[in-house]
Amino acid sequence: MQFELQLLGTNAAFPTLARFSTAQVLTVGNRSYMIDCGEGAIIRLQQYKVSMRKVSQIFISHLHGDHCFGLAGILSSLALGGRTAPMQIFSPPGLKEMIIAQLNVIDAYEPFPMQFIVVDPTEHQLIFQDETVEVFTLPLVHRVPCTGYLFRERQRRLKMQKEKIQIYQLDLPQILAAKKGEDLLLPDGRLIPNTELTREQIPPRAYAFCSDTAFLPQLASWVQDVDLLYHESTFLNADAQKATDTGHSTAGQAATIAAAANVKKLVLGHFSARYPDLGVFLEEAQAVFPNTVMGEDGMKIPV
Amino acid sequence: MQFELQLLGTNAAFPTLARFSTAQVLTVGNRSYMIDCGEGAIIRLQQYKVSMRKVSQIFISHLHGDHCFGLAGILSSLALGGRTAPMQIFSPPGLKEMIIAQLNVIDAYEPFPMQFIVVDPTEHQLIFQDETVEVFTLPLVHRVPCTGYLFRERQRRLKMQKEKIQIYQLDLPQILAAKKGEDLLLPDGRLIPNTELTREQIPPRAYAFCSDTAFLPQLASWVQDVDLLYHESTFLNADAQKATDTGHSTAGQAATIAAAANVKKLVLGHFSARYPDLGVFLEEAQAVFPNTVMGEDGMKIPV
Repeated sequence: MQFELQLLGTNAAFPTLARFSTAQVLTVGNRSYMIDCGEGAIIRLQQYKVSMRKVSQIFISHLHGDHCFGLAGILSSLALGGRTAPMQIFSPPGLKEMIIAQLNVIDAYEPFPMQFIVVDPTEHQLIFQDETVEVFTLPLVHRVPCTGYLFRERQRRLKMQKEKIQIYQLDLPQILAAKKGEDLLLPDGRLIPNTELTREQIPPRAYAFCSDTAFLPQLASWVQDVDLLYHESTFLNADAQKATDTGHSTAGQAATIAAAANVKKLVLGHFSARYPDLGVFLEEAQAVFPNTVMGEDGMKIPV
Repeated sequence: MQFELQLLGTNAAFPTLARFSTAQVLTVGNRSYMIDCGEGAIIRLQQYKVSMRKVSQIFISHLHGDHCFGLAGILSSLALGGRTAPMQIFSPPGLKEMIIAQLNVIDAYEPFPMQFIVVDPTEHQLIFQDETVEVFTLPLVHRVPCTGYLFRERQRRLKMQKEKIQIYQLDLPQILAAKKGEDLLLPDGRLIPNTELTREQIPPRAYAFCSDTAFLPQLASWVQDVDLLYHESTFLNADAQKATDTGHSTAGQAATIAAAANVKKLVLGHFSARYPDLGVFLEEAQAVFPNTVMGEDGMKIPV
C-alpha cells in the first residue's frame, strides 16, 4: 500500500518562489491528508497535480500565517469547484473563527460541510482514526499553542498461509479467528499456533510531523522508531540562542531527536530566509544523524 | 518621472505557478502603490525584487479571495521585518474585520499603524491624493461591491523659461505666480501671458485599473484618454453569457471599452483557468483595439 509524503512548502515565514511556506500532503492507500497549509499551497497543489478529492482531513499545527494562511484559498476554491464532500479540519483553538471571517467576506457560494475540530496541543493523544491510519497529537514548544501530528498505519488483518486452509481443513469461522491472530484448537485436539497459519505481518509504518518547536528531548519517546520524521530546522547550531528565543530548533537539534528516537529517516524543513547557503543544514544534521535529507518543495518521500 | 505598472498576478480565481491571482504595484516617482493582493503576492514581491518600503497605500478592489487573500501575509511579514511606517488600506466595506481576524490569531508582534479606509464602490470620486498622484474610485458591476481605481499624476508646478526671468526682471513673488499658471502684469503696464513665461506642460499621465466587472459602457467616460487601461477579461466572447452571469467581461468587451475611451494602451488580465490557449484573448481584443497586450506575471509596463 502506498504511504508517501509530498512536501508543498519548506520555508519558514518568508516564502520564496523556490520554497513556499509549510504545507504537506500525506497519501496512505487511497486517502490523502493535508498537513499545514501556508500561503500559496493552492498553487503547489496545481503545480504538482495533487488532487484535494482524496483529502477529507486537514491537520494544522498552529495558527501562524506561514502554516495556515493558505487554507481559506483552498477551501473557497474547492467550493467554487463544486465540492460537496465534507472536510474535517484539526487545529489548536482559534482557526475556525479566522477561516469563517475569511469565507464570510467572500461570495456566498454554497460551501460544503466543514467540521473544525479543536485539539489540545498540550496532550499526546489519539485524535482521529479511519480504516487506514491513526493520528496522534505531539505537544510541541513554540510561541503559540502548537502540535505536531503522528500518522501510524493501522494494524491490518493478518493474511492466511493459504495452503494451511487445505492442510487443516479450516472452515470460515476458523479462518476469521486466525486472521484476528488467534491460535486454533482443531477437532482432533491439536493446537495450531497462529504463526503456523498466517503470514508474517509487515509492521505498521509511521510518519511524524514536528512543526515549529524549540528543542524538545522528550519528543524522541513519542516518535520512537517511526519510519519518517519531519522536524523543523529553522536555524543552524551557531544560532541556537536565536532558535531558543523564537521557539525553533537547529538542524543539529532536529538530528539529535532523530538519533535518540531511532527513526529510519529524517527530513529537514522550515528554513529561515537568513541563510544564503542551505547546504550547511544538511552537513550539520548528517554529522549527528546520517540518513537525513533536505526537504525541497515538490519532493516525494516514500515512508 | 517614472510612472510604471508591474503585474504580480494575472489569473482569476484559480492561480497557477505561471499566473498568480490579481496583484499589481504602480510606481510613480519615488512612491509605489499596491493594487489588489491575491494569495501569493508576497512570493511575487520577493521574486521580482519589489520593495514594500516605498508602499504606504494599498488599494483593494473587492473582497473576493483572489484579490485580497495575500494581504494578511504581506502585513504580517512587514511586521516581522520590523516595519514601523504606517500603511493605509483602501477597500469596500468588510476588509478590516477579515484582516484583523487573521492578524489576531497570529503571534503578537507589535504591528505598525494600519489605517483601513472604506470607500464607496458606487461613487466615482477622489479618495486619495499625495504630492504625486490623485486616486479616484471607478464603480464597477460585480457580484459583490467592487471598485476600480484611477491613478492620475498631479498637475505639477509649471517650469519657467529661465531666460524670461532676466528679460522681464522678475522677482520671487512674480516667479511663484507664473509657476502657478498666472499671467503677469509688469510695473510698466505690459501683460505677459503665462505661455510666454513657462515651458509647455507635459499632460498628466493616468492609469486605470478595472478589476472584475461585467461589461459597463459608461466606464469609458471615466477612463477617457488614460495612458494605460487594465481591464479584466475573464472570458472570451463565445462565453459572453457566462461573463454576464458571473459579473465578468470578455476580451472583446474590454477592448470595446478601451476603444470607446480612446486610451493609449490596453492590458488584459484575470484570465479564467478554463482556456488552455490564452492567445485567443489577444486576437479577440486586438480586432477591436489594436494596441492591446496580454498581462503576464512580472511584466513591467511604462505608463
